[in-house]
Amino acid sequence: MFSKILIANRGEIALRIQRACREMGIKTVAVHSTADADAMHVRLADEAVCIGPPSSRDSYLNVAAILSAATITGAEAIHPGYGFLSENAEFAETVEEHGLAFIGPTAQHIRMMGDKITAKTTMRELGVPLVPGSDGALPDLQSAREVAERVGYPVLIKAAAGGGGRGMKVAKTADEIEEAWTVARTEARAAFGNDEVYLEKYLNRPRHIELQILGDAHGNVVHFGERDCSLQRRHQKLLEEAGSPALTDAEREEIGRTSTEALARMGYRNAGTLEFLYQDGQFCFIEMNTRLQVEHPVTEMVCSVDLVREQIRIAAGEKLGYTQKDIKMSGHAIECRINAENPETFAPSPGTVNVFHAPGGLGVRMDSALYAGYRIPPYYDSMIAKLIVHAPTRQEAIARMQRALDECVVDGVQTVIPLHRKILADPSFQKGDYTIHWLENFVAEQTKS
Amino acid sequence: MFSKILIANRGEIALRIQRACREMGIKTVAVHSTADADAMHVRLADEAVCIGPPSSRDSYLNVAAILSAATITGAEAIHPGYGFLSENAEFAETVEEHGLAFIGPTAQHIRMMGDKITAKTTMRELGVPLVPGSDGALPDLQSAREVAERVGYPVLIKAAAGGGGRGMKVAKTADEIEEAWTVARTEARAAFGNDEVYLEKYLNRPRHIELQILGDAHGNVVHFGERDCSLQRRHQKLLEEAGSPALTDAEREEIGRTSTEALARMGYRNAGTLEFLYQDGQFCFIEMNTRLQVEHPVTEMVCSVDLVREQIRIAAGEKLGYTQKDIKMSGHAIECRINAENPETFAPSPGTVNVFHAPGGLGVRMDSALYAGYRIPPYYDSMIAKLIVHAPTRQEAIARMQRALDECVVDGVQTVIPLHRKILADPSFQKGDYTIHWLENFVAEQTKS
Repeated sequence: MFSKILIANRGEIALRIQRACREMGIKTVAVHSTADADAMHVRLADEAVCIGPPSSRDSYLNVAAILSAATITGAEAIHPGYGFLSENAEFAETVEEHGLAFIGPTAQHIRMMGDKITAKTTMRELGVPLVPGSDGALPDLQSAREVAERVGYPVLIKAAAGGGGRGMKVAKTADEIEEAWTVARTEARAAFGNDEVYLEKYLNRPRHIELQILGDAHGNVVHFGERDCSLQRRHQKLLEEAGSPALTDAEREEIGRTSTEALARMGYRNAGTLEFLYQDGQFCFIEMNTRLQVEHPVTEMVCSVDLVREQIRIAAGEKLGYTQKDIKMSGHAIECRINAENPETFAPSPGTVNVFHAPGGLGVRMDSALYAGYRIPPYYDSMIAKLIVHAPTRQEAIARMQRALDECVVDGVQTVIPLHRKILADPSFQKGDYTIHWLENFVAEQTKS
Repeated sequence: MFSKILIANRGEIALRIQRACREMGIKTVAVHSTADADAMHVRLADEAVCIGPPSSRDSYLNVAAILSAATITGAEAIHPGYGFLSENAEFAETVEEHGLAFIGPTAQHIRMMGDKITAKTTMRELGVPLVPGSDGALPDLQSAREVAERVGYPVLIKAAAGGGGRGMKVAKTADEIEEAWTVARTEARAAFGNDEVYLEKYLNRPRHIELQILGDAHGNVVHFGERDCSLQRRHQKLLEEAGSPALTDAEREEIGRTSTEALARMGYRNAGTLEFLYQDGQFCFIEMNTRLQVEHPVTEMVCSVDLVREQIRIAAGEKLGYTQKDIKMSGHAIECRINAENPETFAPSPGTVNVFHAPGGLGVRMDSALYAGYRIPPYYDSMIAKLIVHAPTRQEAIARMQRALDECVVDGVQTVIPLHRKILADPSFQKGDYTIHWLENFVAEQTKS
């Protein structure tokens, strides 16, 4: 096992990783920009090295400075957290070239999944379902009809050369396909000088569901069930759940088996997340994140696993030591991201946190790097804390989150806590009846009223 | 279900009960002395009523004032917490006479278990093991030898009329019994004018192990495994674990079955704890607490149960809805009581908490009513917080508690946190090798060095 790890990140995730290290008896090295000299992750680390000025480019993305810090302090491994250098294949390569362990997948897999087209092709070849549709461009209307019947209406006819919504038409039923075919081809020819079109199932009310995977360096791959991350605003997740209110056990088992088999064939190592659009029992792979996710705690709560500890063990060459059947999901977990933002306009609200009081009690977890008197710098992400709850049922988890939010005090800056309160009180949310479009509509409604 | 509950307590336990109520959609009424006007349990309640001056006798023990507060606010039930009126049978009776539900057992059972001799007699009749020994006074030395052989050496010969250690002799082996018999009788005659003696197994290195029980009003009784509360100083528990590092699964199952059968025959209702001395596989009932215990959270963590919620459901007449086989203990939990005391002299250290920062992250729970700026009044118990951790193994739980204590900041008053750090780092504690005498010896050693 490593005796010292450098954590190439800041904020709550740097602290999260430090906690795992400390519990494993591993010393930690924090790196920080000049703006973060007083940050919690610096205060609580065994050693801390300043790696540059506030701008991320010059500090948290500064590979040379980070590697120097690792060399000077004698760190044996680097954990990249999420964001920053976590999905930078060159960084992973450079770390390993310097004789340090990169706590994550191989550079090859980071690169492969970083290219969204290669990722999809690879996954399809490995048997992971994508959005169903035609295999490339369609020769004629009859073929379009046949594919549409196979995948089921509604369908989308899209310009092969397209983008930006042009040359894209929905056919809700078989009656509409001829018109959609004609219009899409005409638009495509006009816009791109190319009337080739293909067809995809149109997901009009998809959920964003992702699967947490761990693989060791010995060929063992397991999954820890799904997270429902449909509540997004401008592709930013705000509230996540494990499990999804929409999935059946059979669906979970099947996508889990398919995905773990695929990753085992790839020889995937360390933590990874497969993201899917999901509708009516159908999973459509969209991308894979080759790192720890922000929302990993909800999985930890329902599966009783410490994912960061597992990442470190795997990077040190240890075997998982358990199999799929040892992993049970128990109860329900919800995470609310607490961003320092105006809860209506979402404008960042940096400043000094005068009062900070974390909620406590049964089933409540706070992952944050906040403290009373902390000055939130304006240079980085606005997420300042994650509040996570766990309870036997989804209904109880919602009630627990409501009372935890009521106890939570973050004074001096604006936060999205009032928005979370509204979401949790909403009847459709409470029924679990939402899609990836739900939050934007909800926010629009709130603003109107 | 009740719509409003009055909580006849203060501090962390009042907040603990409020949290359960809030999650169940039940309104809460706080009561408080004038010294507690700014307390957290007052700030977070739906309503608060001042019931008297600082002295407990005039406030938290003031039955008339508490009942008036319940009547004025329209509360339908009273939760007594622990301490104060929680084991006062007359209070329970008076509450019910006023048409309110008492969230606890019947007055009859509180009274029965409150008398320690009746408690033991009742439990023995119901098949619960006591300290093994002679059935009353012994007629002669030969009978003493026979009983000693049956219960196993070492044994204690005690004056039937005795007390205070006089007329009490240990026989470590059969060779010593004749002398112990003679000396004990002689001393007994001299001290009490009565040379009758009886014999008990001498427990030279017992642990304090207690079993958490819940019974509903429909005859269903279950247990939630044991807590090891051997770490005590002057009969005050300081650190508790679930499960005990000493117990086997078979022992747990057997004492669990015996105890639940006994309580089912008694018709026991609501939460209760059977306390035992335990040594070499033998359980000896010492007393029963007919209320929620301070250390209930460790049980909640390993059994995934909300004991306060269950108490409320039971008091409202609901059935448990599960049976013994549905209850599984998973992982290991430790609680450190954080007292505002000098960690060496244990002198109370009231004062103002200038800075308070609760530890966070995976598997960490803080039950406290502290906040930055809180002035700890000198009138009540010195326990100001409970830090609880849960992890897959005891070793990981110890490591987690160590890192959580390192994160915990309580500035302005002295606390026992430094003592907890020393205990957790001690090799015999880490091996789980301790008895009820361990902590006092450990503290004495620390003071010497």
